[in-house]
Amino acid sequence: MAKLLVLYKKPNSADAFDKHYASVHIPLAKKIPGLKKYEISTGPVGTPAGPSALHLVATLDFDSLDALKAGLASPEGAAAAGDLANFADGGAELYLFDTKEI
Amino acid sequence: MAKLLVLYKKPNSADAFDKHYASVHIPLAKKIPGLKKYEISTGPVGTPAGPSALHLVATLDFDSLDALKAGLASPEGAAAAGDLANFADGGAELYLFDTKEI
Repeated sequence: MAKLLVLYKKPNSADAFDKHYASVHIPLAKKIPGLKKYEISTGPVGTPAGPSALHLVATLDFDSLDALKAGLASPEGAAAAGDLANFADGGAELYLFDTKEI
Repeated sequence: MAKLLVLYKKPNSADAFDKHYASVHIPLAKKIPGLKKYEISTGPVGTPAGPSALHLVATLDFDSLDALKAGLASPEGAAAAGDLANFADGGAELYLFDTKEI
């Protein structure tokens, strides 16, 4: 399996972010070819010491890193990536990697 | 479900990190009470634009945020957390959150 991990920093308006994410971004991201599983954080993202700088964490699973990269390079992937500018005004970090269960 | 997400920045020695992680840290982390699933990245952690500043991503799943916090607060959790200083010399970010599949 391979994962696309998206770390969204706290936006200017959590309400506006949440509404856009639910009504626009999730439907766009779900169309990415090869997407096998899509998980998001619910509630606050904390650290062992207390609150974090993150608002939301999303994890999108694909069968392989090649499938993930192909999904991102597709028109649907480009649409989802292009949508980030519409709501992720606190910034977002995206990480891609293969995974194994241990 | 709840997740403990650990982002390890690139260490001074990837070899030393990898050896310690495999031989010492994984066995310690696997003893944390309530741990349901443990996944790590394999190979490079990239971004859509190229290499990232991360060396390894670990995801530890628990039934709930309470179970996760109890696990971290246990002697086994403290031992695993205390071990970070022995190999994660590039730094590590830890995030705790509830998740849902969408």
